[in-house]
Amino acid sequence: MNRTNPIGFFDSGVGGLTVVKSFMQFMPNENIVYFGDTARVPYGSKSNETVIEYTLQAANFLLRKNIKLLVVACNTASSVALNDLRKFLTIPVIGMIEPGAKYALSESKNKRIGVIGTRATINNKAYSNELKKQNPKVKVFEKACPLFVPLAEEGWIDHKATELIAKEYLTELKENKIDSLILGCTHYPILANVIQKAVGKSVKLIDSGTPAARLVEDYLNGRGLRNQSVHHGVAEFYVSDVPTKFKEIAEKFLGKKLTHIHKVELEELTNE
Amino acid sequence: MNRTNPIGFFDSGVGGLTVVKSFMQFMPNENIVYFGDTARVPYGSKSNETVIEYTLQAANFLLRKNIKLLVVACNTASSVALNDLRKFLTIPVIGMIEPGAKYALSESKNKRIGVIGTRATINNKAYSNELKKQNPKVKVFEKACPLFVPLAEEGWIDHKATELIAKEYLTELKENKIDSLILGCTHYPILANVIQKAVGKSVKLIDSGTPAARLVEDYLNGRGLRNQSVHHGVAEFYVSDVPTKFKEIAEKFLGKKLTHIHKVELEELTNE
Repeated sequence: MNRTNPIGFFDSGVGGLTVVKSFMQFMPNENIVYFGDTARVPYGSKSNETVIEYTLQAANFLLRKNIKLLVVACNTASSVALNDLRKFLTIPVIGMIEPGAKYALSESKNKRIGVIGTRATINNKAYSNELKKQNPKVKVFEKACPLFVPLAEEGWIDHKATELIAKEYLTELKENKIDSLILGCTHYPILANVIQKAVGKSVKLIDSGTPAARLVEDYLNGRGLRNQSVHHGVAEFYVSDVPTKFKEIAEKFLGKKLTHIHKVELEELTNE
Repeated sequence: MNRTNPIGFFDSGVGGLTVVKSFMQFMPNENIVYFGDTARVPYGSKSNETVIEYTLQAANFLLRKNIKLLVVACNTASSVALNDLRKFLTIPVIGMIEPGAKYALSESKNKRIGVIGTRATINNKAYSNELKKQNPKVKVFEKACPLFVPLAEEGWIDHKATELIAKEYLTELKENKIDSLILGCTHYPILANVIQKAVGKSVKLIDSGTPAARLVEDYLNGRGLRNQSVHHGVAEFYVSDVPTKFKEIAEKFLGKKLTHIHKVELEELTNE
């Protein structure tokens, strides 16, 4: 494996770009390849079987780009498919759950931690199991918030309706006196203000993006795989639907113009 | 073609069941085969290219079940892919747009008609073009309502947040003095109460399901293809994701237990 090989990022759609953004700040000289499965998004309401199938197809596609490490920048896919990916891939695979859980435990004082995510992430108890594995005494309070993704994608980030929905979803977590809340879906940082308002200022919001980026750095350093270039890396983006909408959202998320965006035909994913 | 052959219904997910329900009331003795693309739902936020590709795959699958007529029980697919389907299929294809537009024009007195639907349906101006084709003097006011599908699927049918969102989406239509409003997405009848409240009692809500079922009946009668059986028809359901959630929602929609629900592997759809 070559140090200059790119790092692969995978998400069901655009949400993983919040992770890429953290990552680019830490390691601007790495090359990256991102695949967003925009033709089949969202994953959060689909079955485990389907999420695993799609995730393996995406990993296969990125392997053909000679990635040196895979970041599953999607909480649903991390919750459901990480074990299958690790069985199948020989390169390191970093999900959102382990670094997010570790960071939450380091930030929490009362060890009462809230987790919000898609229905699939919450039903699979991925964060809950990981938190308890890392600290058996932790109390975890979970809540699926399926309307947050469409609200974030609509850009209704400070609408009264979003506030009401956040209140409905989050009041119980607040009553359970959590002191940290894991934003267990890569879309949720977009709604951070309204979520903070609903749970109260004293609750620390935990975004897995930054600790995941730190973990990637540790992995690469530990294996002597950091890119030594002094130049900015190249970022290539692949999506399964036509890239018009993706380009627009991605440029907003990352704050710069993107030129390397390509469409992947579904046949390239399914005909292995 | 045999009279006892089934009628095919296609939708991106569960929404088309509201059409099947209308249909079963009119023609309980027909056999039906339903395909819901639950592994790739929703279509309303995807590109035309992808919607056309998925719709042709679904039609191909249903053709292998020897359907005598295809109902595209999905407004997005009807808006985007009907011409391609009609080029490709030799059996009659009924979409939601023509019967919905015709019914709206027959109900409207002031010929100021509102249309709501997914982003794809509204961007394609499918209802607008059809209404103007049928009556060039009609005034059409359109609005995409992307949050209505997730709200309907969440079952938030009388939540204060749903009322606020409906008000935000629909106030402009109300101000434009429409007297009828086409519910241009098969999920929207589920939110009929809150939509009615937002536009006011005087506005007639137009659901394409019933006029589409009537049009199917006319087509079959005209071609001597009505099933003559005095027994209830058999209804078979196929979905692309595992059927657990579909079964639950479908039984709620149709008000009866369903036994014939099968999963279709994606390879069956994509490998033509």
